[in-house]
Amino acid sequence: MSLVLPQRPEPDPQLRSTLVRALRDFLPPDAVLEAEEERRPYECDGLSAYRQLPMVVVLPRTVGEVRQVMRLCHSLGVPVVARGAGTGLSGGALPLADGVLLSLARFKSILDIDPVNRTARVQPGVRNLAISEAVAPHGLYYAPDPSSQIACTIGGNVAENSGGVHCLKYGLTVHNVLKIRLVTVEGEIIEVGADAPDAPGYDLLALLIGSEGMLGVVVEVTVRLLPLPERAQVVLAAFDDVEKAGTAVGEIIAAGIIPAGLEMMDGPAIQAAEDFVHAGYPTAARAILLCEVDGTNQEVSEHILQVRAVLERCGATEVRTAGDEAERLRFWQGRKSAFPAVGRISPDYYCMDGTIPRRHLPEVLRRTAELSAEYALPVANVFHAGDGNMHPLILFDANKPGELERAEALGGAILELCVEVGGTITGEHGVGIEKIGQMCVQFQPEELEQFRAVKRAFDPRELLNPGKGVPTPRRCSEYRALPDRHGHDHVHGHGEDPRP
Amino acid sequence: MSLVLPQRPEPDPQLRSTLVRALRDFLPPDAVLEAEEERRPYECDGLSAYRQLPMVVVLPRTVGEVRQVMRLCHSLGVPVVARGAGTGLSGGALPLADGVLLSLARFKSILDIDPVNRTARVQPGVRNLAISEAVAPHGLYYAPDPSSQIACTIGGNVAENSGGVHCLKYGLTVHNVLKIRLVTVEGEIIEVGADAPDAPGYDLLALLIGSEGMLGVVVEVTVRLLPLPERAQVVLAAFDDVEKAGTAVGEIIAAGIIPAGLEMMDGPAIQAAEDFVHAGYPTAARAILLCEVDGTNQEVSEHILQVRAVLERCGATEVRTAGDEAERLRFWQGRKSAFPAVGRISPDYYCMDGTIPRRHLPEVLRRTAELSAEYALPVANVFHAGDGNMHPLILFDANKPGELERAEALGGAILELCVEVGGTITGEHGVGIEKIGQMCVQFQPEELEQFRAVKRAFDPRELLNPGKGVPTPRRCSEYRALPDRHGHDHVHGHGEDPRP
Repeated sequence: MSLVLPQRPEPDPQLRSTLVRALRDFLPPDAVLEAEEERRPYECDGLSAYRQLPMVVVLPRTVGEVRQVMRLCHSLGVPVVARGAGTGLSGGALPLADGVLLSLARFKSILDIDPVNRTARVQPGVRNLAISEAVAPHGLYYAPDPSSQIACTIGGNVAENSGGVHCLKYGLTVHNVLKIRLVTVEGEIIEVGADAPDAPGYDLLALLIGSEGMLGVVVEVTVRLLPLPERAQVVLAAFDDVEKAGTAVGEIIAAGIIPAGLEMMDGPAIQAAEDFVHAGYPTAARAILLCEVDGTNQEVSEHILQVRAVLERCGATEVRTAGDEAERLRFWQGRKSAFPAVGRISPDYYCMDGTIPRRHLPEVLRRTAELSAEYALPVANVFHAGDGNMHPLILFDANKPGELERAEALGGAILELCVEVGGTITGEHGVGIEKIGQMCVQFQPEELEQFRAVKRAFDPRELLNPGKGVPTPRRCSEYRALPDRHGHDHVHGHGEDPRP
Repeated sequence: MSLVLPQRPEPDPQLRSTLVRALRDFLPPDAVLEAEEERRPYECDGLSAYRQLPMVVVLPRTVGEVRQVMRLCHSLGVPVVARGAGTGLSGGALPLADGVLLSLARFKSILDIDPVNRTARVQPGVRNLAISEAVAPHGLYYAPDPSSQIACTIGGNVAENSGGVHCLKYGLTVHNVLKIRLVTVEGEIIEVGADAPDAPGYDLLALLIGSEGMLGVVVEVTVRLLPLPERAQVVLAAFDDVEKAGTAVGEIIAAGIIPAGLEMMDGPAIQAAEDFVHAGYPTAARAILLCEVDGTNQEVSEHILQVRAVLERCGATEVRTAGDEAERLRFWQGRKSAFPAVGRISPDYYCMDGTIPRRHLPEVLRRTAELSAEYALPVANVFHAGDGNMHPLILFDANKPGELERAEALGGAILELCVEVGGTITGEHGVGIEKIGQMCVQFQPEELEQFRAVKRAFDPRELLNPGKGVPTPRRCSEYRALPDRHGHDHVHGHGEDPRP
């Protein structure tokens, strides 16, 4: 199996009881979970193929308690994995048998809404959608919208630099967060970012966003809010050929339109979504595109006409504009439910998250189909086409011997294909534990060593989420030696480097 | 004097001759400057009050040569200061008497223009404006436009995270750079960033942008290009009161318009600019606003009407829309020439770069005027009003005893005023050597220590631009003890932190 859990020491019963006794000194009884059945809900995140019971779960309520937990774990040398809602898809919140699982679930307050400066200061356990709901009375919203936005928390979004269908126009989490308050591994507080356009000193804000809990524990987030657009409208286009749909994506962007969302689904994904939520999708199509534009009434009307013209020119067999807001939401409902929809038709699925330069879309779809045949596992494709962020869903049955391993190998091969055409192994789901092997393909040894040096600058003893995100040199040697690795070591962007 | 040069060891003649001999082994004669008259042009950057001859100047032509320079300096323990065009305003490129000044002036090639993906890959010594000129035939441009754009280089822009009048709408350098190739202090190459929307691993790209040459030497930059807007139009509004102009800024933003530029000048700045470039400014006004909108013809026409209405409602005494492109450029010419214009009317000037939350604009202007009276030095105000980035220009005469020191003390007091109202000590000019004392006011000791840890992760021996950007703990103690410090130690954003 290419994907192995990090090797950890056996939990030391003596250390465990010392830790728990000390935790109970300052935390109320319901904030320290020891019993196996209480720890069970925390054994995995959205990458449910990997499970590990944590040594103990803590659920602090205040920043002061988080600081005390960190100080204690630091003094005892106990590793800590922080967790939001556990909806992450790369195993970033997978616990450690010898570690503390630190849940931020009780940090659910919206601390401040400033409609004039268009910011909100929130605790990390606030759900993504709850921010938009809270600020809607001011005509504002928070733009990044991962599919899990009803459940996922802003702290988790920060950890994974989450995107969503609207990030083509409005950016990822990193583009929509202004400030973060962080508890360090030693229990200190640092605040990074600023309300101003730039902040003096090194840009630790961007460094922390997407760092998967490996540099500190986020205890407060100030987000940027946007005015709700006057109008949003979506066009659905059907194609009898996936490559034509891929071409249309490039043509829309080239026409100078930046859609609020530009999503593609292939035949298997369309069928699964339609069966599940009855979005009205044309199930005979080989691919559909959903193109949303937003802005003033005038802009939207103009852009919809332009988009329709491009889609027809690119050979769409059907182009449908949502007739009203209910239909617009239904169109999106299909796309946003694609993962659970696929979950209904397959015992298990494995969602990949590679990105590619848009121009390689047709080629990558063709080669993905070839790999799917080679590994004898179906693949349904759903993706943020506008920014080249693919989400191939590999369908398999973990109860059939060898299928999980084959799904992983196929997933790895697809990611290495993304790297080969100049893309990356993750667009928005993070590396976590899932893609740690492929990090050895994406980056040169010097680059990985620089990541490790940055990690040490925050966490010299490797206590924060160890084993995730950045592979050790040994791990890379092992990964490169794997017999079932499909890809090779072409590394993006370095091909033309005549290193002297 | 509050601003002291970093204390450095005397250059060691033995080490110097060893270094020069080794440099001449792999660099051609014209790439190693030893003679005093050859080193003289490198003794300062745009913060010309501080001058220091470097031990030796090197002008490599290839990445391989840069790597060899770095390896050599690393092995000998010689510090290195990298330099672009030397237009920086905070002394970030001030040389060291015991160090190498590494000029990137010969890295002037545009390596690749990709009009489909709208990117350009350029060497660090390419001038900011040269990029826009080179891509203009494709209908594209590079958005960040510092006042010095005709001379400053993209490498320097990356080092300082430069902005410009258009950064309100289009962002700072960090928002417009996709990838960087960096030579590390040990002479290794690492590449950070990606063509994809997100890159796996820690976000070193944002960390490096604005790091003032303290983490590595940038040898290649891939920038994002934007389509030239169909039309740009500018409105000039005159006010008989600076506070009214400040209010109008907030009202324009609140109306939902994001201008491409929103700039303010006060009476002394208007007069100086008008005398210099005859931009047609109303010299009787106490303040003018320049508000540019860009986009489609339709959008621009609508927004200009809205902007004019807001300005009139806010009490503008005159509102003028540029009649043609020539007039539009003339309006901007006045603003962009404000620094040299002030340079004509005063023997010396000192340009500050604080940012403040927009709502404090009227208060900060009033208190700046009070400080100006207190220190008996005139101040001309020019600023990126839309994003609250102030550029007070303190007029003084360095030949008059005590005036430089008074100008510095006044500048420091203005910056601490910015911090007090929730702003920052620099918006786009960087910390360099100039604001290193104020860093002790802006940040808590834990935050500064985290900056130092990040620095060590790239440069453990402090060889890259030492003494700039991040103060040592000792420096902060000295700064806080200064008798002529005007401000106090209120630190932005931490007021409400009930640290347990």
